[in-house]
Amino acid sequence: MVIRSLLFAPANRVDLVAKFPRSGADAAVIDLEDGTPEQEKAAARSGLAAVVSGLRARGMPGLLLVRINAPASPHAPADLEAALAADVDGLVIPKLTTAAELQPIAAALDRAARPADRRPPILIGLIETVAGVINAHELARSDARLHALAFGGEDFISDIGGRRTPEGREVLYARSQVVIAAKAAGLAALDQVVVDIRDEAQFRRDAVEGRSLGYTGKMCLLPRQVALANEIFTPDRDEIDWSRRLLAAAESARAAGWGVIEFEGRMIDPPLVRRARAVVELAARLEASR
Amino acid sequence: MVIRSLLFAPANRVDLVAKFPRSGADAAVIDLEDGTPEQEKAAARSGLAAVVSGLRARGMPGLLLVRINAPASPHAPADLEAALAADVDGLVIPKLTTAAELQPIAAALDRAARPADRRPPILIGLIETVAGVINAHELARSDARLHALAFGGEDFISDIGGRRTPEGREVLYARSQVVIAAKAAGLAALDQVVVDIRDEAQFRRDAVEGRSLGYTGKMCLLPRQVALANEIFTPDRDEIDWSRRLLAAAESARAAGWGVIEFEGRMIDPPLVRRARAVVELAARLEASR
Amino acid sequence: MVIRSLLFAPANRVDLVAKFPRSGADAAVIDLEDGTPEQEKAAARSGLAAVVSGLRARGMPGLLLVRINAPASPHAPADLEAALAADVDGLVIPKLTTAAELQPIAAALDRAARPADRRPPILIGLIETVAGVINAHELARSDARLHALAFGGEDFISDIGGRRTPEGREVLYARSQVVIAAKAAGLAALDQVVVDIRDEAQFRRDAVEGRSLGYTGKMCLLPRQVALANEIFTPDRDEIDWSRRLLAAAESARAAGWGVIEFEGRMIDPPLVRRARAVVELAARLEASR
Repeated sequence: MVIRSLLFAPANRVDLVAKFPRSGADAAVIDLEDGTPEQEKAAARSGLAAVVSGLRARGMPGLLLVRINAPASPHAPADLEAALAADVDGLVIPKLTTAAELQPIAAALDRAARPADRRPPILIGLIETVAGVINAHELARSDARLHALAFGGEDFISDIGGRRTPEGREVLYARSQVVIAAKAAGLAALDQVVVDIRDEAQFRRDAVEGRSLGYTGKMCLLPRQVALANEIFTPDRDEIDWSRRLLAAAESARAAGWGVIEFEGRMIDPPLVRRARAVVELAARLEASR
Repeated sequence: MVIRSLLFAPANRVDLVAKFPRSGADAAVIDLEDGTPEQEKAAARSGLAAVVSGLRARGMPGLLLVRINAPASPHAPADLEAALAADVDGLVIPKLTTAAELQPIAAALDRAARPADRRPPILIGLIETVAGVINAHELARSDARLHALAFGGEDFISDIGGRRTPEGREVLYARSQVVIAAKAAGLAALDQVVVDIRDEAQFRRDAVEGRSLGYTGKMCLLPRQVALANEIFTPDRDEIDWSRRLLAAAESARAAGWGVIEFEGRMIDPPLVRRARAVVELAARLEASR
Repeated sequence: MVIRSLLFAPANRVDLVAKFPRSGADAAVIDLEDGTPEQEKAAARSGLAAVVSGLRARGMPGLLLVRINAPASPHAPADLEAALAADVDGLVIPKLTTAAELQPIAAALDRAARPADRRPPILIGLIETVAGVINAHELARSDARLHALAFGGEDFISDIGGRRTPEGREVLYARSQVVIAAKAAGLAALDQVVVDIRDEAQFRRDAVEGRSLGYTGKMCLLPRQVALANEIFTPDRDEIDWSRRLLAAAESARAAGWGVIEFEGRMIDPPLVRRARAVVELAARLEASR
């Protein structure tokens, strides 16, 4: 299960949710939190199970998730109940700040009946507050259901009272800490949204930087961004070819008793070999899941 | 109490201290530490109360603070006594490294008599050593009198044995950690000085980056820098207008039951709305305090 | 003992190891780990003492070290035994992740006989995994024999699943955390390798940035890089002259009772004076050791 793209749509925007099956997203999120205004939340919850059934009936590919309101919000219990009553693959938990916040969610998941042929629901924890960034390591290890941490750069900067820039140095520390925490705990890591929805170049730059940092996928605001995220988080032809050549050269070197070799101008040693192998394996996994 | 600019002058430079009332600084600091050479410190301490009275008599606007020598220094006790005997609004504690260092200062503040109509003195902790950066979170939470943490980039780089560059990547980690620690503890955050005192463009770049990171003000070495800091840490007309338009659009969207809207090419959701509201509120606070 | 350059060569590449004495490296490392392929490791270990004796006989200047395999590897005990039986100045421990990993190494060093006229062997810990970066502070303080931490950017990025870029923002957090941990514990700090072995400009940029961050030297893959590292981690003529002028100006200012002065367009206070003094002292130490 590789999530390169995680597409959000407000739970009360049935028109946008209806686009999920053809969006190409590896995972799609029906959003009861920030996407759905206060006065629409109750209706959105009531309609959730039917919306999910509708998507399933249309053969929704990829994962289908629900973002509940933050654990500290008064909406959280009702959201959780509605999400568990619907046929979803998991939950996105926003503004995750302390490990204790996950406990009632974990308890509700334990109580919920689930067909034996379905995978247990996964959790994706959104780290998007100053306190959440500080506690990222603890949060990453707090519940075995966590599949990924996601970094919410917009909320983080709002919380700290900063400003966003295209270059993004203002989030580099937090964005690095979240991916480090995720990977140390064996989790996937989903990168920040890009709110400049008409600026494809900015999305590309940001996604490429996220990938360099170790993120494995990216949160998306619309299907256009999904296509870009899928592209950037999939190894491209050149990268696969280069990795295969490198692995072949390393194998020859190994057989000849050379531990470190020069390959196309770079000194190649085991970390580069491991990176090349990871590229080839990810490409094969993505190919197999098509 | 918003400190956009914190102007330092050496305690033995009565000529520079005399410029405080007309400097426009939100806070001004009489410096017994690095600004005052060893052989002048005793005289500067003796003259402190009179200097402060003189400034008060001239109707000094803004806060008036004293930077004592580092808690570990032999000067610290006498500095503290002199500062508490003068009519100041608080203390700047340099080279703050462990929470224990604040205890004697806190005890002295508890013992000090203070007129009932005066606010209790505030503390600003300067994080400017490698050990201080490591302990930033603990320091930020160590005393309720702390109003702000300040980041001393020059001292930090001297302590770690690095070099300063105009781009400042060498301090990005430490500068980020300090503002995160401050904000997590509910404190203000004051950014590093710029020693290139004739380079206005460098000061602007550095101040804008500090603001992006979440800093709320900046330490200044001379009145010229104060004017720039006040300007950059005050929302400008365009930013206020944009924020007001955004809030109006968000309010219309809310009334119409839309949680997320496109506004001038960006996807607007609650974190951006919160940021816009913070801009408008800060502008109103600064306007009211004029 | 200042290590500006730490040159690696595979233990099974006697031709490359033979270049150590004339490489100019402040320290050279015979590499039993990644440089030596699996099937060559046993032979390399057997030959180690003779290789070391040969280098000593040729009057090897600088430190001579051995990189053993990672503590968690099955090779580690035999590597350690072979290294201690050879006349080396210390060990490089790769993929250091927890303090417990150093205990068997410390115990073996305690047991090993050593001529009374030789310095005790030093340890250099390589931080190059996600877990190692997280534990960097604890690792830096875990054993008094540690002389330096080194940051392995290539392995770190392989471990986190990221990509390397020339600008290196993807490692800025980890690279900063390692040098901060090292310096807080009073250790030297050795910066990442540059695998683009034909790109001198890239090596220079990377070394200059490492020096700005506080690193004291750099790991090198070949003698060409050693010359660059030695140059960049040695204060140059302009820097020494500027530092001397600054110290003279600061001394005059001090004598005149001025704590902070303007010097060539910059405001000079104690942190800059300390940095200038460090430059002059390092230059003198390096001059003396020639």
